[in-house]
Amino acid sequence: MEKYYFGVDIGGTATKFGVFNHSGVLVDKWEIPSDRTDGASHLLPSVAAEIERYASGTENVLSVGVGIPGPVQHGGHVTRCVNLGLADINPARELAALLHGVPVFAANDANMAALGEYWKGGGNGARSLILITLGTGVGGGIIIDGRMIYGEGGLGGEFGHVVVDPDETFPCNCGQYGCLDQIASATGIVRYARNMLAEREDASVLRSLETITARDVVDAAKAGDALAAAAFDRCMYFLGKSMAMLTNTLDPETFIIGGGVSRAGEYLLDTVRRHYDALPTLFGRKAQIGLAQLGNDAGIYGAAKLAMDSVR
Amino acid sequence: MEKYYFGVDIGGTATKFGVFNHSGVLVDKWEIPSDRTDGASHLLPSVAAEIERYASGTENVLSVGVGIPGPVQHGGHVTRCVNLGLADINPARELAALLHGVPVFAANDANMAALGEYWKGGGNGARSLILITLGTGVGGGIIIDGRMIYGEGGLGGEFGHVVVDPDETFPCNCGQYGCLDQIASATGIVRYARNMLAEREDASVLRSLETITARDVVDAAKAGDALAAAAFDRCMYFLGKSMAMLTNTLDPETFIIGGGVSRAGEYLLDTVRRHYDALPTLFGRKAQIGLAQLGNDAGIYGAAKLAMDSVR
Repeated sequence: MEKYYFGVDIGGTATKFGVFNHSGVLVDKWEIPSDRTDGASHLLPSVAAEIERYASGTENVLSVGVGIPGPVQHGGHVTRCVNLGLADINPARELAALLHGVPVFAANDANMAALGEYWKGGGNGARSLILITLGTGVGGGIIIDGRMIYGEGGLGGEFGHVVVDPDETFPCNCGQYGCLDQIASATGIVRYARNMLAEREDASVLRSLETITARDVVDAAKAGDALAAAAFDRCMYFLGKSMAMLTNTLDPETFIIGGGVSRAGEYLLDTVRRHYDALPTLFGRKAQIGLAQLGNDAGIYGAAKLAMDSVR
Repeated sequence: MEKYYFGVDIGGTATKFGVFNHSGVLVDKWEIPSDRTDGASHLLPSVAAEIERYASGTENVLSVGVGIPGPVQHGGHVTRCVNLGLADINPARELAALLHGVPVFAANDANMAALGEYWKGGGNGARSLILITLGTGVGGGIIIDGRMIYGEGGLGGEFGHVVVDPDETFPCNCGQYGCLDQIASATGIVRYARNMLAEREDASVLRSLETITARDVVDAAKAGDALAAAAFDRCMYFLGKSMAMLTNTLDPETFIIGGGVSRAGEYLLDTVRRHYDALPTLFGRKAQIGLAQLGNDAGIYGAAKLAMDSVR
């Protein structure tokens, strides 16, 4: 019977499973609700049960990679993972024990997504890339010469909480003001649009909407709505600024933009590229910019890649 | 006869040579003036000649690492190196040709210093470290899991040109305003002290000096001079801010402070640690902070380490 690598992406609401063969081809995928009842005590057992069920035991499981929506420290310890209600746990070790010693490796989910895009997505053969995910917040992952930068305490790629707008007066939930997370995320784009609607008087299709989503802002901007375009442009300016800072620190070959906001596609790329190219970097050095390609599957790809690399 | 690795650190005025045995022990070191005459055309030949002279030919040269005071691109190309007057050159290849095929590896000098400190200096067994050198400017190097982040265009570790003071009105030579390079360098400390002398009226020993050096500011601050202490404290605040940004991006195990300003020793560490610890980072995560230990030899150590690692 064929042996498999498993890539698992544990999210706050759903847990995704990907089954990869020895060549790294995704042969199956599915998801189950993330069981957070009883202090999430059933969560890892339910993950182990799914893997055992699929593989008819653990004999045919080569290794398992797991993405966790929180910081995973060097050594695998998770002090707290708010989205799952987990605290003081080593998920890789617990899962390995549940799977009778199968090698299990855990890392932050945004890092896993970066590894997935590097391996089979927008990375496209780059030696080094930085994935920036624009979702509810801004996450990311940094891969240099094929190796992930996880960070000693699991904060590798958390540049969403580097301040890019020193004039911001609304607090970020991290305690700072003006983090990229507050601005270039879906949440941030909506906030910027709302602020502009309050400050400006010009017409906008957004004024007719009862609730506004980031997608509404992007769609209106694309359709020529000046206010929506101005709000989106401002958010993308700060994304470009963050990329210039990262260029002067890590100088990656390419940036990959992912997350829900990246569905704005070429419009987003054009907007952020214009700002990034205009911002000063040392020696005028600029990285390429591309879109993520794996969508919600990036996490299971990355987790499987981590699993594959760690047992060779 | 014993075989050697050579670590070479080419600076604007002097070129340092370090000879390391197969175990990585420094067995000899010296320096010669950097020959920049005739468009620096004699520079690399003079480096090759020194190595051949010491080793009585190239038979006993295992490999050579070279630190260059400018960005070295992936592949070894140097577009321009202002301090040496070099342009459009691949120093590693040219030197290898001059040395009859001995393997030669070149990288930025600040990156080499970081590798040196990681290997035999202040790194002290850390898996990952960021060296921040406070000299005429602010340079640095990033090592994660034992591997240097050079950057595609050679800009790895150039966080000296990330803006930390958005209120700065004096331009940095990179075209931005408020770079760490302008503030926490020896030049920046003197500038801050001069500005405070102009803005404030209180007594200060600095007022009696005709020219002020960063060392004067530090010495006065240590001796209790309130104005000097305030100037130095402000500069170190921005260094701490930069370290908080790097923690939220790379999350290193330790920061190492080097360069001429680091001679301020524990006083510098105490000052920057106070600011760094007070600044928000995700989950309150903080790295250790230590002093560089190899002084001006860090570059030859790092270059030799690069040479050793690259031929194994």
